[in-house]
Amino acid sequence: MNQILFSLDLIGTFVFAISGVISASKNKLDLFGALFLGFITAVGGGTVRDLLLGVAPVSWVRDTYYLFIIILAVAVTYLFKRHVLKLRKTLFFFDTVGIGVFTILGLQKALILDVSPIVAVIMGTFSAVLGGVIRDILVNDIPLIFRNEIYATACIIGASVFLLLERFNVSFEVNVVTTIMIIITIRLISVKYKIGLPKIE
Amino acid sequence: MNQILFSLDLIGTFVFAISGVISASKNKLDLFGALFLGFITAVGGGTVRDLLLGVAPVSWVRDTYYLFIIILAVAVTYLFKRHVLKLRKTLFFFDTVGIGVFTILGLQKALILDVSPIVAVIMGTFSAVLGGVIRDILVNDIPLIFRNEIYATACIIGASVFLLLERFNVSFEVNVVTTIMIIITIRLISVKYKIGLPKIE
Amino acid sequence: MNQILFSLDLIGTFVFAISGVISASKNKLDLFGALFLGFITAVGGGTVRDLLLGVAPVSWVRDTYYLFIIILAVAVTYLFKRHVLKLRKTLFFFDTVGIGVFTILGLQKALILDVSPIVAVIMGTFSAVLGGVIRDILVNDIPLIFRNEIYATACIIGASVFLLLERFNVSFEVNVVTTIMIIITIRLISVKYKIGLPKIE
Repeated sequence: MNQILFSLDLIGTFVFAISGVISASKNKLDLFGALFLGFITAVGGGTVRDLLLGVAPVSWVRDTYYLFIIILAVAVTYLFKRHVLKLRKTLFFFDTVGIGVFTILGLQKALILDVSPIVAVIMGTFSAVLGGVIRDILVNDIPLIFRNEIYATACIIGASVFLLLERFNVSFEVNVVTTIMIIITIRLISVKYKIGLPKIE
Repeated sequence: MNQILFSLDLIGTFVFAISGVISASKNKLDLFGALFLGFITAVGGGTVRDLLLGVAPVSWVRDTYYLFIIILAVAVTYLFKRHVLKLRKTLFFFDTVGIGVFTILGLQKALILDVSPIVAVIMGTFSAVLGGVIRDILVNDIPLIFRNEIYATACIIGASVFLLLERFNVSFEVNVVTTIMIIITIRLISVKYKIGLPKIE
Repeated sequence: MNQILFSLDLIGTFVFAISGVISASKNKLDLFGALFLGFITAVGGGTVRDLLLGVAPVSWVRDTYYLFIIILAVAVTYLFKRHVLKLRKTLFFFDTVGIGVFTILGLQKALILDVSPIVAVIMGTFSAVLGGVIRDILVNDIPLIFRNEIYATACIIGASVFLLLERFNVSFEVNVVTTIMIIITIRLISVKYKIGLPKIE
């Protein structure tokens, strides 16, 4: 189980980094800009979570394999950009898996520190979505997830269900799989049927 | 006294969150965007202060009632938006009370850690103004307080006067009331008479 | 040696603060905006580094002389703006010295904490460049260093060479001087011959 989660965490990191490079490419940044955007998209959410929780130093300072995965993702995207862009659907799928895994792992890290349920849900959600928010801010866009589609909402629901099932003594493994599936399903359905949150106008 | 400060702190949080939702509404964000902007406007300043001072975890992770107040503010504004917008003058008044209270409370939290006077003034000011700065950045505006009106300056003056009066052994209660009043007065007068800082051009 | 580094650190801080004020002036901010931009440009990079490494409180909270240098830089630029702008070449030169010194000092601070080489290089580079990145974000520009010229890349190379030479037991003094010179040289040459990184398009 932990092995699977660990693999999915790495795949999520890889795909998030690619999304940073693609954003860099759209904005005609140079190679350093691409590296930085890839980096911040992949580890930005977890970094903010660690800072807010007072976990120091932040995760990628301790576990440097994240950094090598990001460098790999930037190199691959730079060298084979055309091919990577063609994989749009695959990227979208793994991005969705990524937010599911990031949410539940982030939730876990918060729970270890004995925070209240609402804070744990926030930390799970932040882990999944803030990297993308910082990426968008850096290239001068209003963050996508503030405007379109169900994204953070899927994370909030998944994280909340996790806490609920935990209270009913559902086993850890079943709970992790179930809630990650819930996040992925909500996200996929909302994109397919273009369901969004109500606007505030 | 502490009871009053505590109440004003909550009211300030409530009004700051509303200002985040109003900004979300101007930028046609969705409900999650509104929630996030409300959250960051209300607790952003105090969060940065805690991080800079090394107070971990940050305040709303420990004291979760801030979060419920923010959710309440977002819900109220979303449901009764028209009525809330009509209260512009009331909101402006409590926003002004809010920056006064946030400044002096933030100053206090820094002083407990035995920092130098200039750092304490900065921390008080940051507590009051950085939430709004992050809000503006997130919706792609150059922060309002960098361009118009006396805002941060009122906080800087109020915090400085606090330190001065403290040195003259003015009692804590008198000092808090006096300096919050000073901040409120400077802000109200500057808005009424459209007094701003000199531009750098 | 430490005396020289310390002086260069202060000069770098001074010049970085001036670049913040100049950016404020281009964007027609007021005096507080100028002060804030000067502050964030000068200490932003080191602040983020300290937060990520878990060094608390951040450096300028402990060593407040940075703050007085920033205030001085803002005052001088505000009062003698025309003269300061005429010194463009001098400012550019000291900015370049600044990134060299900031990189190696930041690298050092990371190494003390026994982080891995790649993290140390990142922390050195962040110390030098993130202040400017935050400055650009605050005035709503896509950060300059993501688009033009060799800037962060010079820091990355200089920091990497430092680690390499250290492994070959080159003395600390020689190593510091050599790698700062390398950073300065790369930067100056790249600007003179308009050499940039490849774009990602």
